[in-house]
Amino acid sequence: MGRGWIEIKKTYVRDVFNVDAGCEAELLGWVDSFRVHGGVSFIFLRDSTGLIQVTLRKNEMGPLYDELVRILDREASIYVRGVVRLDERAPGGRELVARDVRVIGASKDFPIRKNVGPRFLLDNRHLYLRRPKPQAILRLREMVFKAAREWFGQEGYVEVQAPIFITAAVEGGATLFPVKYFGRTAYLSQSTQFYLEAAIYAFEKVYSIQPCFRAEKSRTRKHLTEFWHIEAEVAFATHDDIMKVEEELLYHITSRLVEWGRKELRILGREDFKPPEPPYPRIKYDEAVELVNSKGVRMEWGEDFGAEAERIISTSFEKPVFITGFPLETRAFYHMPDPDNPGVTLSSDLYAPEGMGELTTGGQRIHQLDLLLRRIKEEGLNVEDYKWYVDLRKYGSVPHSGFGLGVERLLRWVGKLEHIREATMFPRTPARVYP
Amino acid sequence: MGRGWIEIKKTYVRDVFNVDAGCEAELLGWVDSFRVHGGVSFIFLRDSTGLIQVTLRKNEMGPLYDELVRILDREASIYVRGVVRLDERAPGGRELVARDVRVIGASKDFPIRKNVGPRFLLDNRHLYLRRPKPQAILRLREMVFKAAREWFGQEGYVEVQAPIFITAAVEGGATLFPVKYFGRTAYLSQSTQFYLEAAIYAFEKVYSIQPCFRAEKSRTRKHLTEFWHIEAEVAFATHDDIMKVEEELLYHITSRLVEWGRKELRILGREDFKPPEPPYPRIKYDEAVELVNSKGVRMEWGEDFGAEAERIISTSFEKPVFITGFPLETRAFYHMPDPDNPGVTLSSDLYAPEGMGELTTGGQRIHQLDLLLRRIKEEGLNVEDYKWYVDLRKYGSVPHSGFGLGVERLLRWVGKLEHIREATMFPRTPARVYP
Repeated sequence: MGRGWIEIKKTYVRDVFNVDAGCEAELLGWVDSFRVHGGVSFIFLRDSTGLIQVTLRKNEMGPLYDELVRILDREASIYVRGVVRLDERAPGGRELVARDVRVIGASKDFPIRKNVGPRFLLDNRHLYLRRPKPQAILRLREMVFKAAREWFGQEGYVEVQAPIFITAAVEGGATLFPVKYFGRTAYLSQSTQFYLEAAIYAFEKVYSIQPCFRAEKSRTRKHLTEFWHIEAEVAFATHDDIMKVEEELLYHITSRLVEWGRKELRILGREDFKPPEPPYPRIKYDEAVELVNSKGVRMEWGEDFGAEAERIISTSFEKPVFITGFPLETRAFYHMPDPDNPGVTLSSDLYAPEGMGELTTGGQRIHQLDLLLRRIKEEGLNVEDYKWYVDLRKYGSVPHSGFGLGVERLLRWVGKLEHIREATMFPRTPARVYP
Repeated sequence: MGRGWIEIKKTYVRDVFNVDAGCEAELLGWVDSFRVHGGVSFIFLRDSTGLIQVTLRKNEMGPLYDELVRILDREASIYVRGVVRLDERAPGGRELVARDVRVIGASKDFPIRKNVGPRFLLDNRHLYLRRPKPQAILRLREMVFKAAREWFGQEGYVEVQAPIFITAAVEGGATLFPVKYFGRTAYLSQSTQFYLEAAIYAFEKVYSIQPCFRAEKSRTRKHLTEFWHIEAEVAFATHDDIMKVEEELLYHITSRLVEWGRKELRILGREDFKPPEPPYPRIKYDEAVELVNSKGVRMEWGEDFGAEAERIISTSFEKPVFITGFPLETRAFYHMPDPDNPGVTLSSDLYAPEGMGELTTGGQRIHQLDLLLRRIKEEGLNVEDYKWYVDLRKYGSVPHSGFGLGVERLLRWVGKLEHIREATMFPRTPARVYP
């Protein structure tokens, strides 16, 4: 061809739908499917912008036609030069009548086919990415991040990155991944919260978007060992304030998904998804426990909500719902006890509707040195392990609150995905670190 | 005060410079410094938007004045209500004459003072973040990410996230961090490259911005064990194409830093920083080796550039410089051998000027199955370890190229930072996982 690839790759499939009929166009892409009908063949050519029918005629192409019929297979990469032609029978009303077709990379027996099972698709996710469903999910995923950054930016937050290698746990130590770190042990971070709490003294409103890690053994539809976490922390914010932040952010993200991701939501069968308008209902932990028990699932006050309980609560509301006032024993040491009811914390979980369960956890943090030290000791933890975190309470501490939103959980709900694994490009679960 | 904090925190220091003199304002912030001159005292109050002088007068405030003089110390958090007054002697020409001051969180002997050493600042980075220099760097850092996303978005790239837990190394295995992963060993990713290579078959142009990990023992000024990596991969792109991508991206980012980060660059003494306009000079590896030897640092053809060599090359050009044609033995197996000179690769490093050295590594990847298999074997690696990566060459493989840009290295250069540790909020080096 004599020219560089990039020079050729100035036309995308999408562009072919925006030029006049009769124009010549050059395309580079993959054979999504290939059908032969005697002297006429049809390639559905795919690139990152769409699909177009390429028509090959034996009487126009001669021996090349026979060779292409012999060698072309699904997912071969090809160069096509052809003429744009209107044809009502072609998808989108246009086709490219091929003048020249060259194979760049051959393909034989592409393994992703209809009726292969979910496990096979996970084992071959590096190939499965070429299909419309994972692509739609990954594009929605990109929109989630973009919309979140847009909202935080408008509201004056500063984005920071916290370290992944840590020595002190935000959540329980049981779900930490240990790493050998030059002769000592470090852990992989479960949450950026402690570091965001340090950063509010510089920027007041901060957020982070980065991977977090949980060595969670339970094989559920809602856990990954590696997930992306949108976390925020706000100086001078109470628990009530942070719930408002959460619902505004969630409304903004879901509104953008509907606005930007119309096509992608349609691919997932979620064209009817409606962004839930704030305010979201708030129920007390006590009420939630009652609700769960009334539906026949036994649980005691002071327990965490299990998968069944979560499903019951999550299906009882049309909108996302905040569960507030979690008992001290269900929360980590840094949660602020409610001054009016010290057995419970100023904290909440936000559950998605449709049975999808927990999206966020948030709340007010203890900002008083004495109270924090007391809570660390009550929980049987070692103050020395939290030295720098405790330090933050010594020099002009301020009331503050924050939350964390699981990106894959949000996508699972919006996309109504069977399993949270689908919400990320290469999922990691206890049984899976491949591909 | 009877109102929530958020309700009060509607006025920021910045706003006080935009209201009429005589207005009353309420502020929440920290005592940056406090000076007492008999019956008049001056607080420099800091919040996330700036500094303002707050003037306290004993004859107006009565006993509260004496109490404040007794208890106020650097970094205490306070509430101030006062009246805006023009005063040429005050920084910015304005002050707030205090009517009421309340201490939210006391502070005593804030440890960050002039003349404390760099190690002390690292040990107390959770407190040091309150100072102007780390804040300027972190704000520039946010701008780097924002500008990069802006450029990739304009150019039609899709942002994806690759897994951190991996089983196959992109770089050498020697610098991998192993993690115990449910009874087996996984590693922490050094680069998203392999996963981006999978994603080009869906999106053609992809990028990722995420943390990467290198168990690099060498204690240099340019290595972190945990760093943020901007990586991109482009289908149908040659090595030449990807160098153009790199220089355009770098020019865009540095132009935005100058545009958005004027104040921050001034704080770092870099108000004279000029975004380097493309094209950047390209020199061959052979020429670079000659240059290094001519300056009295001995090195052989086939060696990698050491710290001294890097400094020599980096100080020999006014702009960033590409070093192209690295020998096969200096590069990982997937680098495309030059068809005209198979002993060298179609790859390059981009060095920053001013002695700052390597910013990016990029090049064309082997897209031919046979060649890739041969190179894996030649390097003594096990094909089975790269099973899915090899798979990508079986189904419509296409020529493609990509690169990785180290965010902290970019910031170190632009900010002319002494050590790369300063370029991230909580740096991680072999000797440091705290705070």
